[in-house]
This record gives sequence, structure tokens and C-alpha cells, in this order.
Amino acid sequence: MSSAHRPSADPGQEDYRILHEPDLRDYVARIPVLAAGLGGEPSSWAITEVGDGNLNLVFIVKGARSGVAVKQALPYVRLVGESWPLPLSRAHYEYLALTRQAELAPGLVPTVLHHNDGLALTVMELLEPHIIMRKGLVAGTQYPRFVDDITTFMARTLFFTSDLALSAAEKKEGIAAFAGNHALCKITEDLIFTDPYRIAEQNRWTEPYLDGLAAALRDDLDLHVAISRLKLKFMAGPEALIHGDLHTGSIMVTESQTRVIDPEFAFYGPMGFDVGAVLANLLMAYFASAGHERAPGERHAFEGWMLETVAQVWNEFARKFLDLWRGGAAGDAYPISLFAGEQGAARLEAERHAYMQRLFADTVGFAAAKIVRRIFGLAHNIDFELIEDPRRRATSEARAVRLARAMMVETAPFRTIADVTGAARKLRDWQPELSG
Amino acid sequence: MSSAHRPSADPGQEDYRILHEPDLRDYVARIPVLAAGLGGEPSSWAITEVGDGNLNLVFIVKGARSGVAVKQALPYVRLVGESWPLPLSRAHYEYLALTRQAELAPGLVPTVLHHNDGLALTVMELLEPHIIMRKGLVAGTQYPRFVDDITTFMARTLFFTSDLALSAAEKKEGIAAFAGNHALCKITEDLIFTDPYRIAEQNRWTEPYLDGLAAALRDDLDLHVAISRLKLKFMAGPEALIHGDLHTGSIMVTESQTRVIDPEFAFYGPMGFDVGAVLANLLMAYFASAGHERAPGERHAFEGWMLETVAQVWNEFARKFLDLWRGGAAGDAYPISLFAGEQGAARLEAERHAYMQRLFADTVGFAAAKIVRRIFGLAHNIDFELIEDPRRRATSEARAVRLARAMMVETAPFRTIADVTGAARKLRDWQPELSG
Repeated sequence: MSSAHRPSADPGQEDYRILHEPDLRDYVARIPVLAAGLGGEPSSWAITEVGDGNLNLVFIVKGARSGVAVKQALPYVRLVGESWPLPLSRAHYEYLALTRQAELAPGLVPTVLHHNDGLALTVMELLEPHIIMRKGLVAGTQYPRFVDDITTFMARTLFFTSDLALSAAEKKEGIAAFAGNHALCKITEDLIFTDPYRIAEQNRWTEPYLDGLAAALRDDLDLHVAISRLKLKFMAGPEALIHGDLHTGSIMVTESQTRVIDPEFAFYGPMGFDVGAVLANLLMAYFASAGHERAPGERHAFEGWMLETVAQVWNEFARKFLDLWRGGAAGDAYPISLFAGEQGAARLEAERHAYMQRLFADTVGFAAAKIVRRIFGLAHNIDFELIEDPRRRATSEARAVRLARAMMVETAPFRTIADVTGAARKLRDWQPELSG
Repeated sequence: MSSAHRPSADPGQEDYRILHEPDLRDYVARIPVLAAGLGGEPSSWAITEVGDGNLNLVFIVKGARSGVAVKQALPYVRLVGESWPLPLSRAHYEYLALTRQAELAPGLVPTVLHHNDGLALTVMELLEPHIIMRKGLVAGTQYPRFVDDITTFMARTLFFTSDLALSAAEKKEGIAAFAGNHALCKITEDLIFTDPYRIAEQNRWTEPYLDGLAAALRDDLDLHVAISRLKLKFMAGPEALIHGDLHTGSIMVTESQTRVIDPEFAFYGPMGFDVGAVLANLLMAYFASAGHERAPGERHAFEGWMLETVAQVWNEFARKFLDLWRGGAAGDAYPISLFAGEQGAARLEAERHAYMQRLFADTVGFAAAKIVRRIFGLAHNIDFELIEDPRRRATSEARAVRLARAMMVETAPFRTIADVTGAARKLRDWQPELSG
């Protein structure tokens, strides 16, 4: 009887409230596993708000023994304010995705220590001394573990949630479990697949230098068809549980570790959207690099590594994905019983490569879409934004956009990842005509 | 308080039990709207079990004033027995689909008078004097309303549940609402997309005449790749709320009316699966026709109408679907704002045709898959089965299979529906080599 009077005894049942510092300290202190892990008196814990993302509050809590990261969703888009409401349920989907990813790609996502659906709050291990990969790339740092880790993450999370690994029933249950996350999908649908190609209040770009290019994009009907086809694939192509926002700002790294964070956009969507996001952000770091050099050629080695990394991300992803498929595909797609014997095995292997070729084509398109949105849409990235001279910034951006436009519309030449890196290399010193 | 002791007062809460005749009479008598509609004393109602399908019990109840049809799901596949269990929840999904179809295509599905989820039971208007269309086609009857009605049904139910008409959020909610119907999808995945192409206990065909063809299908790796791609599209291509079993046995007709029944396989799947099902069943009726003629050329006019109908079903479906799209697409796909002005409108119109071309290619493939399963899989149809002479039957079947194989594998020549009907016409008198 008495426990029925205290629903707050079950943390899952707490009503939502924003946990500011004193509240947060009390809350963490009441969770034994967290308090013990942190160590020392709660009053001695150091609490700092560090959220630099667009949507949520993020606190770091440090105790005598260790630290934790606390992420709480706000009922609106933090970047914009209360005028743009956003459901708290995204914390639920992020938690679901994190736990699934932890099963499928152990060691590549932060460990969840505590989750409270009612408060839309998740407590995770503190990643230290990891930094956001994008910051390292701006500084010209190379990450030797990155290719192996990110390709393991993508190959395993995408393969094992696809029709190649799941029964059709399990797959449908997965799709349904994430179907409610549509408000987050809608952000992607609008900001990536629609707004950059039309007049939209939230669009911005490096003015006046890219004014002409922005106008050209708005009139480019071939591009509008291409982005609309990609949008439809994003909306109606539930191939696997995708991270949904896999840019270099969602990856924390040291030279020896990689952790993928922030899967609140997760849902069942096209695999190429995740792979394309990684490639796009590496390509943008490559094109931004020229804008960060203080002397010509200073970042030559970094840029070489960057393009090498682009190539290896695709090639290693494809190799690992194919190996998983060959090794034991238990899903309902491509049943092994239809490909018996030596000839059957050879035909299935050919079809696996054809499948990867279709996935590559999707990846190239989605990568291009991710580039365009960072240059003409609402959310930009520091790769370009930290280039102080706007003319230099616009030059780097225009090179990236030229490649992206070709990747989305003139798709025939992009048969392999070497075609992409080759095209990027050729644009390294291309001088665009700028406006203004 | 007292009502809480009587959960059965709410028919939705009744525990499942199979309603045999006396039970059923009592049950119907207790539902005022049904009893009043039937008219007369319940004891005077005539009750007949008429289910000739594979899965359920179907009763016709006739009273002094009118009649109703009562459909109750069994917890197993009726055709096979208790050894093949099948969830009762299919009655829930059938009811959901029927009500949605009634909104979208008024007058083209039976009116639901009563539904009880707990009993997996649905009471519908009695369709009289309608007959199952397949029976009419076997007899050589032409149905002048059919093309207009079935194309209205398909164009409206598919368009209005697609990304062209729905927001992405509404679409995801729809997908989730039907995701639980996976046991019915699994039947399709196994019996249509897998078993006919491998050794499977439930397969059967016209022996010995088609033994060689059956073996050839099991060794045809190009065909196995094609059917596997179609299967993947069926599992992971939620384009619209499809009927899922739209053969001529699911269509009841008079010469002036058409009603689509039995959507218990409904879920969000590829549109081409429904359109292909209709075309496949018309093509099978065409090929079976030669087996039913008592004198050469006797059914010439019927066969001409049949192929004309195949062509019109696709053409009218495409015309109506395109008109709906042009008339007011409110969905998140292909936003009109990206296709402004005269040039934009022209480009969008070209893309609409490209979209229909992709849908046509899917339709051709799914139609072929539906033909093969009726000749080599578990469930056959009376079009062929009622051809008594097995050699004549096998001849008709082999012609249909030859067309189907081409439609699935040698796809390039099938650019328009005229290519399909032309190929069918050429095979009308082709003499296959039979085994045995």
C-alpha cells in the first residue's frame, strides 16, 4: 500500500521537469549505482552544463572517483527555443537505439548507466579524454583507429537489423518500435531533403559569395528530382536501424578509441543514409582543410589521409558487411536454400556484390544531400564555419557543392569510391566564380 | 460496480471461442442492429457455412428481411488444420483494412455491420447475387464494370495511403498499425517468394507433365535472384496499405457491381504487389481459357476481352493514380514547392511518369511471382484446376509459366502493358514440351 503512494520511487514514473543544477545533484545522489560510481559526497561533485548540440541539455558530473554525462531532452529545439516544440519521446528512442547498438557493436557507444523515460534523461559513462571528432579534424588531427571502428559500427548495426539478419516478423517489430520517432525524422525530411532547395526562412549561406550558387540550386530541377527521390527513400525505405545523424559531431574520438553518440534520430531507414553521412562529413573536412591552412600545402598530409579515409570507410564497411552476410545470414531475405551448390553460391555472391553496388549508389546520393544542407540549410558545421575569411570559406564550400551536385545528378561516373575521391582531389584547387 | 462483473456486456471483451451454428444464432440475436436488420424470429433464420477459402469460417445468415455474412478467424489454417497455427489477430487487421478501404473507395468493399476483436469475428452485408469473380471467369463471363471499379479501388486505396498523400508521420503510424500482421505476411513470403523455387513439402503441380518445368525452376538461378529481389521489396518496401491478396477469388462481382473482400493480408507493402496480383489472375484466366473450350475458338471473344482487360486495368489504374497525384498531393513526398512555375510543373509531370514506370516494373515482377506460385506452390486456383484433362491443364499452365519467367527475368522488353498482352497473345497456341 505505502509504495503505491510513492510513484516517484520508480524513477521511470517521474513527471517531466527540467533538471537544473541543484535538482540534478539531488537526482543523481538518489540513484545508488550512480552515486557510488561517482564517489565522495554529492555536495563535492562538480557539475557543468556542456551541451553544444542543437537540441538538449548535457551535464558533466564529476565525483571523487569518476564522472558521468547526463543528457536530458528539452520539450523544444534548444537552438531555436520554445517556439519549435519537439517531443521528449526522442530520449526514449535514443535509449532504445543506444542499448541495441551496444549489443551489436560492443565498445563503440557510450555505456548507459541509467535511464528515466519520464524525465527524458539518460546517464552515460563520461567519455574522457575523447573529443568531438569534427574538432580534431578542423585542427588537422589524424585518427588511426577511426576507419576500423566506424566501419565495424556501421557494418554490424546495419547488417544485424536488416532483412539479411532478421526474420520479417522481427524486422516489422523493430520498425514499429521506432515508428513513433517521426518528429525527429521530420527534421531531417525538412532540413536536409527540402529546405536547401527552396526559399526557406531558416536557410543561410556564406553571403554574398554563394548567393548565385544558392539561387542556382533553387532553380536546378534535375537536382530537385534527385533530392525528392532520396527523400522518398528516406521516408519509405526501412532497410535497417540507422543512427540517423552520423556526422563527425556525433563521433567522439581519441587516437585509440572511437565512440558513436547521440542516436536520437534513430529509426528504420535506408542504410546509405548513415554511410553517406560519414563520407559527407569527411569530404567536407577535406574541402574545409584548404581554408584552415596558414601556409600553402601545410595540411597536405592531412588531406591525403582524409581522402584515403573516405576510400577506406566505404571499402572496409563493404568488406565487413559482406563478411557478415557470407558468415551467417539468418534473415528472411535471400534464403540460402535458393542458392544451393557451387553454382548457387557463386550466383548469390554475385548478387551480394550487386546489392552493395545499389547501396553504394544510395550512399553517394545521401552523402551529397548531407553536404548541400550544411552549406545552404539551417545547421552548418565548424569545418567551414571556423574559416574566418568568408571568401576563402565560400571557395571551400563551393568546391564541396560542385562535387555534391555531381554526386546527386551526374551519377553515372560514380561507380566506385575511387571515383568519388578522384573527383574530390580534382576540385582541391578549383577556383569557383563567386558572387559579390 | 455491477457492469464491472460482466465484461461480456462489451462484445469486444469476449473471450475467443469458435461460434458454431446454435452459438452463432444466439450471438447475432443479441446484437440489436443485426437482429433488426435480419428481421423475423432468430429461430427462423437460415444459417449456412459457406467458407471455401483456406483460412476461416464464413456463415451466411438469412432472416425475413435481409441477410448478413459472418466471418470468424480460426486459430489455425483451415485448409491444413491445427498443425498450422495462425494468429486470430488477422481478424483485427482485416477489420482495420476494411474500414480504411471503405473510407477511401466507398461502395467497393462490403459494409461492416459489426466487429468483435475478442471473437475475431466480423459481420458484413451479404453480397447477393454477387459471385466470386474467378468462377465467372472460368465460365467465360465478361464483367463490364470490372475495369473501372478495380482501378478506382486500387488507385484510391494505394494513392491515399502513400507518401504522396500522407505526411511522413501519418505514414509511419499506418505502418506501425499493421506491423503486427506479420504472420500473414510470412505466408506470402514463404508460399509466393520462396517455396515454389525449391523443394518444399507443400509444393504441387500437374504431374507428371510439369515435372521437368518444376525442376528447371528449382535450378534457374536468374529466377532465384529475381524472386529474392521481389521478396526483399515485399518485406522492406512499405509504399502503401495494400490488400495483400488481391486475386480474382477476393473479388465478388455482378455484371454491374464489384466488391473487394478478404483483406486479412493487408499491411504496408509495395503497391505493385496488388496491381500485379490482379494482372496475374487475369492472365491466368486467359491462359486457362483454352483448356475450358469445348470447340476450338469457342472462347475467342472472352479471351480478347481478357487481354483487353489486362491492358485497361494497368492503363486506367495509372491514369487515375496520376490524376489523384496531379489533383492534390498533400503528402511529404515530392513537395510542390520544389517544382514551382511552368518548368517545374513540367519536370514534376515527367517525374510522375518515371515513378509510374518504376511501379510498372514492380507490377510486372509481382504479377509473374503470383503466376508461378499458383502452378507450383501450395495454393492453386480453379482457373487451371477445373481443366480436367491434366495434359491440357499442364499445357495452359506451361504457357503461363513461360510468360511469367520472361516477366521476372527478361524484363527489358516489358516497357508497357501492351508488351505483356502481346507476349501473352503469342503464347496462346504455343505447344510446350511436357514431361511424362
